[in-house]
Amino acid sequence: MNASKPKIVVLGAGYAGMMTTKRLCQQLQPEEADIVLINKHNYHYQTTWLHEVAAGTINHNLARIMISDVINPNRVRLIYDSVVKVNKEEQLVELENGEVSYDYLVFSLGFETNTFGIKGMDEHAFFINDIDTCREIDSHIEYQFAKYRNEENANDDSLAILVGGGGFTGIELLGELVEKVPKLCKKYDIDRNKVRIINVEAAPTILPGFDKDLVAYAKDSLQSRGVEFMENAKIQECTEDGFIVGDDHEEIKAGTVVWTGGVKGSSVLGESGFELTKGKVTVNEDLRAPGEENIFILGDCAWVMNKEEGRPYPPTAQAAMQHADTCANNIRALLHDEPLKAFKFSDKGTVASLGVTDGMGTVLSGTKLYGKPAATMKKVVDNRYLFLLGGPKLVLRKGKFRPF
Amino acid sequence: MNASKPKIVVLGAGYAGMMTTKRLCQQLQPEEADIVLINKHNYHYQTTWLHEVAAGTINHNLARIMISDVINPNRVRLIYDSVVKVNKEEQLVELENGEVSYDYLVFSLGFETNTFGIKGMDEHAFFINDIDTCREIDSHIEYQFAKYRNEENANDDSLAILVGGGGFTGIELLGELVEKVPKLCKKYDIDRNKVRIINVEAAPTILPGFDKDLVAYAKDSLQSRGVEFMENAKIQECTEDGFIVGDDHEEIKAGTVVWTGGVKGSSVLGESGFELTKGKVTVNEDLRAPGEENIFILGDCAWVMNKEEGRPYPPTAQAAMQHADTCANNIRALLHDEPLKAFKFSDKGTVASLGVTDGMGTVLSGTKLYGKPAATMKKVVDNRYLFLLGGPKLVLRKGKFRPF
Repeated sequence: MNASKPKIVVLGAGYAGMMTTKRLCQQLQPEEADIVLINKHNYHYQTTWLHEVAAGTINHNLARIMISDVINPNRVRLIYDSVVKVNKEEQLVELENGEVSYDYLVFSLGFETNTFGIKGMDEHAFFINDIDTCREIDSHIEYQFAKYRNEENANDDSLAILVGGGGFTGIELLGELVEKVPKLCKKYDIDRNKVRIINVEAAPTILPGFDKDLVAYAKDSLQSRGVEFMENAKIQECTEDGFIVGDDHEEIKAGTVVWTGGVKGSSVLGESGFELTKGKVTVNEDLRAPGEENIFILGDCAWVMNKEEGRPYPPTAQAAMQHADTCANNIRALLHDEPLKAFKFSDKGTVASLGVTDGMGTVLSGTKLYGKPAATMKKVVDNRYLFLLGGPKLVLRKGKFRPF
Repeated sequence: MNASKPKIVVLGAGYAGMMTTKRLCQQLQPEEADIVLINKHNYHYQTTWLHEVAAGTINHNLARIMISDVINPNRVRLIYDSVVKVNKEEQLVELENGEVSYDYLVFSLGFETNTFGIKGMDEHAFFINDIDTCREIDSHIEYQFAKYRNEENANDDSLAILVGGGGFTGIELLGELVEKVPKLCKKYDIDRNKVRIINVEAAPTILPGFDKDLVAYAKDSLQSRGVEFMENAKIQECTEDGFIVGDDHEEIKAGTVVWTGGVKGSSVLGESGFELTKGKVTVNEDLRAPGEENIFILGDCAWVMNKEEGRPYPPTAQAAMQHADTCANNIRALLHDEPLKAFKFSDKGTVASLGVTDGMGTVLSGTKLYGKPAATMKKVVDNRYLFLLGGPKLVLRKGKFRPF
């Protein structure tokens, strides 16, 4: 590295970090700046595909991409290590195995699961965090089925799958589970009727904030394939055996418990002394951390305010990628002493999958989509991202062309 | 069923029971006798392939055959139930859900695992018993790998696989494990060197009774692929964490413990009042139980004496199928008032697989085979059985044509 050249360090190779790095490479000449990308693993994974890994409906290798396959290691220095803390005073990133200085920092370390202090949840529930946790969920569910027939007086509860939280991730996970469970039943000679799939949501309805028609559609679709919904049901506690739910402390037993009910920004934010609101940093409209000239915070670590509505934009992959565009532009502006621009969210709609052939959501102008068209659109969205990241080759290699 | 027709009841659809039923169908006209086959499951499985199911190197569906696919249900009455006891006085078989009378009985309920009273073995070890137990082993091993990366300070011991007993089944299982483990390591991003595969055998050498050259070959082959052998090592106890071995009570830890060290005949033999020698019945040379006119005991439930050597023949699938021939012939002889014939074992050799491309054993005249030729011969043997059972169609559908 050249000491006279400014050094841009990107933390985390999620949607925001990968796309920022990609855009910086496109917009800056090598002599303008050094770029460093730091990530725990040598692969990027698609957070929005993790529910499929957890249910085992796709192989986890489809959901991950070697970073060096899409980021040129001759242009970007790639460091595979865990970030411990950002030392803002000294402009240093402390890693588990070293430290890296920066002139400009892009903080995009993604989310962690938020259990909101629900007793026992950290100890007993699985989380949809990353490739590692999701393939454990898949293997755990299958192991419950494999064990079942070898137990005397086997308990059907061990087959039950309990999903805490009826938000986007929870609902998409249920969509995959209703496809996976019948296959496991066939494989292990188990009656499908013995396997309960239960969703517990504290709000009056699943998918709070979503259009009512879409929610009704999702619920119908999943119920018709055997999902039991408990709405208005607050989880009091998670135990080894399942959930304790509601004011009457009903016990819902299951061999597999997955919590999808909440996320917060990376805990490195707090370690580094950023001021937090509900676990994230509320950033300026140019996406910089308040009071910081050279630190951008993106993706699931940031609250980006929608001034018109007076509340933050939802933390989606779509938003994270748009953050990346704005951030890369603004870093170039800083290098060129140009004025920074404000982030503007362009809502291209949101589509949720409900298994391979079903889905629901809105596109562009708010048009509602249901069923196969929605499922198709979801795959188009997934493949569009691959195209942005790695061009047509990546789409062909990792894209979703699941048969209908 | 016609009350005047003699009724032949075959218990168990293993190698002996299936082949006996098949031969009876070939040798007896429908008007000569009714035939009933009673089995716990609606499928027959290949006991000699179970080590592959346990290691997950073949899908369990390849190792099982729907009984009604090879036995004509219009000729043989198929009952899927568990045998509780044989009431010899009343000529009745007591089932979990009913009872069946017989004129001639073929007792071929196969083996159960014998732990020889080793403390904790029944509670903590997996057994190579049947399809159900073997797919649990497979799923359990994979689950250890899936869990590993999500544990803080993960213990490498959880990845270790401990195989108790270095007999035929143990060695064949090791041969599959050395092929499966590298695949799991790749799948779950785990260093192969972290995974121990350990075999513990009480005798001075693995494969006691086998030719020394063959034993040396098997040991070399498996050691070179990472198996650790502990010979002369008596298992004192099996705990939740592994084995306690030898006089100095060394603790060998592992996340997966499989016991392959011994078998005995079905416990229904004892329940039914047959006199047992080491868990089996020593049958007459016509394969009938001592003192019984109409009860044949075959396969892993029987000791068939080799008079020349003064000890029983080894309990192999090959022997079980030859028992079936003799038994079917002798039942026909009884129906026709002809003299019964003595069982004669025709040794066609024994081949052990050591994974997909390696093996060792003897054929026919005692010629020793090693490596790929042995592995090929093993598949020939497996396919030969399918041919005997279901003709060329079954070979094509369930045969082994694994690529070299």
